[in-house]
Amino acid sequence: MKYSFFKKMALGLLLGFCISVASPVMAHSGLVVIETDFGVKDGAVSAMHGVMYSVDKSLVISDLTHEIPPFNIWEAAYRLHQTANYWPKGTVFVSVIDPGVGTQRKSIVALTKSGQYFVTPDNGILTLIDDRVGLQEVREIDETKNRLQGSSDSYTFHGRDVYSYTAARLASGKIAFEEIGPKLATTIVKIPYERPRIKNNTLQGTIVVSDPQYGNLWTNIDSTLVQKFGLILGKKYRVRIYDNKIKKFDGILSYHRTFGEVPKGVSLVYLNSLMNVAIGTNLGNFSKIHLISTGPNWRIEIKPI
Amino acid sequence: MKYSFFKKMALGLLLGFCISVASPVMAHSGLVVIETDFGVKDGAVSAMHGVMYSVDKSLVISDLTHEIPPFNIWEAAYRLHQTANYWPKGTVFVSVIDPGVGTQRKSIVALTKSGQYFVTPDNGILTLIDDRVGLQEVREIDETKNRLQGSSDSYTFHGRDVYSYTAARLASGKIAFEEIGPKLATTIVKIPYERPRIKNNTLQGTIVVSDPQYGNLWTNIDSTLVQKFGLILGKKYRVRIYDNKIKKFDGILSYHRTFGEVPKGVSLVYLNSLMNVAIGTNLGNFSKIHLISTGPNWRIEIKPI
Amino acid sequence: MKYSFFKKMALGLLLGFCISVASPVMAHSGLVVIETDFGVKDGAVSAMHGVMYSVDKSLVISDLTHEIPPFNIWEAAYRLHQTANYWPKGTVFVSVIDPGVGTQRKSIVALTKSGQYFVTPDNGILTLIDDRVGLQEVREIDETKNRLQGSSDSYTFHGRDVYSYTAARLASGKIAFEEIGPKLATTIVKIPYERPRIKNNTLQGTIVVSDPQYGNLWTNIDSTLVQKFGLILGKKYRVRIYDNKIKKFDGILSYHRTFGEVPKGVSLVYLNSLMNVAIGTNLGNFSKIHLISTGPNWRIEIKPI
Repeated sequence: MKYSFFKKMALGLLLGFCISVASPVMAHSGLVVIETDFGVKDGAVSAMHGVMYSVDKSLVISDLTHEIPPFNIWEAAYRLHQTANYWPKGTVFVSVIDPGVGTQRKSIVALTKSGQYFVTPDNGILTLIDDRVGLQEVREIDETKNRLQGSSDSYTFHGRDVYSYTAARLASGKIAFEEIGPKLATTIVKIPYERPRIKNNTLQGTIVVSDPQYGNLWTNIDSTLVQKFGLILGKKYRVRIYDNKIKKFDGILSYHRTFGEVPKGVSLVYLNSLMNVAIGTNLGNFSKIHLISTGPNWRIEIKPI
Repeated sequence: MKYSFFKKMALGLLLGFCISVASPVMAHSGLVVIETDFGVKDGAVSAMHGVMYSVDKSLVISDLTHEIPPFNIWEAAYRLHQTANYWPKGTVFVSVIDPGVGTQRKSIVALTKSGQYFVTPDNGILTLIDDRVGLQEVREIDETKNRLQGSSDSYTFHGRDVYSYTAARLASGKIAFEEIGPKLATTIVKIPYERPRIKNNTLQGTIVVSDPQYGNLWTNIDSTLVQKFGLILGKKYRVRIYDNKIKKFDGILSYHRTFGEVPKGVSLVYLNSLMNVAIGTNLGNFSKIHLISTGPNWRIEIKPI
Repeated sequence: MKYSFFKKMALGLLLGFCISVASPVMAHSGLVVIETDFGVKDGAVSAMHGVMYSVDKSLVISDLTHEIPPFNIWEAAYRLHQTANYWPKGTVFVSVIDPGVGTQRKSIVALTKSGQYFVTPDNGILTLIDDRVGLQEVREIDETKNRLQGSSDSYTFHGRDVYSYTAARLASGKIAFEEIGPKLATTIVKIPYERPRIKNNTLQGTIVVSDPQYGNLWTNIDSTLVQKFGLILGKKYRVRIYDNKIKKFDGILSYHRTFGEVPKGVSLVYLNSLMNVAIGTNLGNFSKIHLISTGPNWRIEIKPI
């Protein structure tokens, strides 16, 4: 009996294995992360969620943000860059900031070298993901196959009809990446921006984005450049900020590891959570106090005193 | 051996089938969609989520919006209408805009002809769902049975104590629709509104709601009426908007499929994502520019020039 | 054959049982509830979600709120108190209002007497949970073991690198509470506040927080004290509100069960959803109309007329 039991147990395990193998084996994460400029006051986001859960109720759907300022593709690009690295391989990101909806702009799915997918209009949103992570392959969505049934008369909400539907099918393994559509022959659309650099013994970069809740300013000067330049903890630096050529801030700030190392109300230079140079005020709002905004025209210079 | 293996495999499959059949079979979706006017700054929504997950951790709980303007039942009705169609059969919607909480207004669960459930105070929230989808059966919640244990002294948060609890139990299959309470003898409360029409060779309707992030105005003129009237793509029309009898906008707009078909800053007539007539400005905010709001008193007229 | 079938069925069930028992058995809820002051305009919250799902995709992650006013530890403490009771035993709460990030403030996990976990900086956030529920045991997070791999150079986002990672591992059963780190030798940091009381035939308390969407004011006067004092439904009381010693409101209000028991625009005293005394206006905003704010310096007095 005992022998027989173990034989049967082994067979049972084998059986289980066979069943697993028999079921359609497709690598899929089941994770979808959504970013839009829709806000959450109306039903647009929920319609997207509904389309996705209609494809597969077992999906995990997570909202990156729906508060991208309307039509601000640059900020959308930055928020993807800020978060993607913290999500598992196989995660499907949907980014819908789509001022060109219904026109000839392409709809694409990009597979990164890190194994994540991005479903989005081809309008520059993938600029930073391409630069920092790298794209493995880009496919144009074939809307004759990958579009919510009955939605072909709708011209203004591809986020729901095409992107959500396609992302959910990809994330749930109902379609493979190859079934999205043809490989994109040309390169993707990218937003031009200036790279950070060291020049005249000065760290120079762009204030790419803010930390909106606290008013901290984030630059694109990364830790490699910081190391090369040799910023020293606790030391004072002269910081100048320009809106185009017009000087908007000129002051002396120390470089610290974290806010609590300076008194309340004192500003500092620090490395933010992406290990890029940032400027902030301990328990204060640097951006509001000094009326500094963000974008390609906002330049920063840091040099020893 | 081989024969024996396959025999056992077949038996194993049969066994699995038997176990599935043995478990309690109740049709339930496991999906709950919540809409409130609570905002998300305090703990009210999370208390509702907690009550629901306490009923069943495996529920999928999705927030439609919590930014319905306080007490605005009409907008709540519209947001349900905007989204329900994109969610699966069996989805349980909870809508809590409840200025009459604790008074004699009824608490109901409505089953639509499309097989979705709506858990809500009977105060007009289901006006558009009833008109566009149709109600199959409405039951009044029997609070002696369907109420969070220990909450009977609480008079101001039925959204948590009654609606969330009941919705979660219904969505998870812990109770059947019949166990909600008695069938409602009377009809549900409905908000009166004017139907769109063609009169004097003019398309006439109401500006029912806005697309708050972009300032587009949505009317209740549907595509059937548009087709009957014969709006022609690319053609110009005279558009007038009235707040009661006072003219607030009078201009010439073209009818297009999508925003990108007109230059930046130009306004247009188009069909929105629900295939209703809408007015917007490409990369601009029509509502803010022209100071147009929404609601039953905001009327629109469109006629050929 | 029939006999053989049932024998095999029994064996199959036994087999299933054995496999269940073989897998690592740890009591864990799989539920994580997050509260921050980060807002949802950028990627900070999504990075936290990503870290958590990277630990275990099957977690249920729910946002309490991310709209705690920046650095407002008192309000964060209150929102935990407002909601925790409605979540199941075993739920892991993460509260990141962390003005001292990167400094010597401790990072802790507290286990309450009710069997829930709180992962947070030790800065006062657990004041009300300790007072109302009670802490069973508090452990300091050993960051040499409980920290996202590769994040050791990051000093400004422990919410992502330490708290989210640790909470997810605890909620998913990947670590036990004992593996968090050493038991805290000292007591936790607490925010001092005045207790409600009856004095000179007057109910006295603090306006601890508001119901921000509607402008209702919530006090810390609980139903036990109300019962002892003997508030009578329908009866009028004199209500005075002070900002420190300066009188900001002085009026006669009735005590009612719910808003709908007074006409539109009329203010009332009622018991809120936590069964504490509150002040509000039916279909109006008491806080805005009378310019009343909240916090330890806002005192209320209620006495018979």
